[in-house]
Amino acid sequence: MGVEIERKFLPAGDGWRTQGEPILLRQGYLCADPARTVRVRIEGGEGRLTIKGKNTGATRGEWEYPIPLPEAQELLDRLCERPLVEKYRRRIPYAGFTWEVDEFLGENAGLVVAEIELPSEDAVFDKPDWIGEEVTGDKRYYNSSLIRFPYSQWTNP
Amino acid sequence: MGVEIERKFLPAGDGWRTQGEPILLRQGYLCADPARTVRVRIEGGEGRLTIKGKNTGATRGEWEYPIPLPEAQELLDRLCERPLVEKYRRRIPYAGFTWEVDEFLGENAGLVVAEIELPSEDAVFDKPDWIGEEVTGDKRYYNSSLIRFPYSQWTNP
Repeated sequence: MGVEIERKFLPAGDGWRTQGEPILLRQGYLCADPARTVRVRIEGGEGRLTIKGKNTGATRGEWEYPIPLPEAQELLDRLCERPLVEKYRRRIPYAGFTWEVDEFLGENAGLVVAEIELPSEDAVFDKPDWIGEEVTGDKRYYNSSLIRFPYSQWTNP
Repeated sequence: MGVEIERKFLPAGDGWRTQGEPILLRQGYLCADPARTVRVRIEGGEGRLTIKGKNTGATRGEWEYPIPLPEAQELLDRLCERPLVEKYRRRIPYAGFTWEVDEFLGENAGLVVAEIELPSEDAVFDKPDWIGEEVTGDKRYYNSSLIRFPYSQWTNP
């Protein structure tokens, strides 16, 4: 098991837009239950199956397996819950860490979330000036929630 | 994607008991939804992750990935839905096919199911005399159903 320690923020302004190179991520869920999500993702021609456990604070158990691209495609097309999640991810290095800025498409268009993966829950990090409100732990922003309650349906985002 | 074509029977009598060598299978579900089951199984010291689609007659899509044993153990212990399914499987060759006879333990003790995997839906096969009623398609006998409605709770098995 790997452990994922991640904090999540909304952007403040558009400063992120001109940084990093946007890469298209296409992903879906075989299981969107927060207690045990099973995700299929295609990124840059590679398929991956990722299992994550329940969040405890900013920490989750994570198990990840590469799978052949045609099989990832089949699982996304035939089996995963609808809708799929599509987003452009930009990886932006800043002060020794890498920020992942996800710009969602489709039913989640308009939503942008910035994440930082940390070595420990209490790790200290600097934030670029285009980072705004923290939303770590806010279930609405879980990617697995965004298939049930996409951003376009939020009345009070 | 592989395709699994499988027919399922109840045994008639105990003739199967003295054949094949019982091997313990321990398995659990990350997703027990019949539209997309995600199963973790340990058999003979090997871990495997198996994804199956919806049944159409006796046919299901199947995607299978070997995973390291300690990770299979973690997924079973920490993440899979309760209860786990444990059973002894006997593989019994008969008339050119292999029958898998599963003798369930724990909350499903008393249940025995015999399965035969076929190359096509209309394949012709001979049945040993210890094979009884066919239960292909009867959802109660799905392993993924047995964690929700274990055999010990059936009022009219």
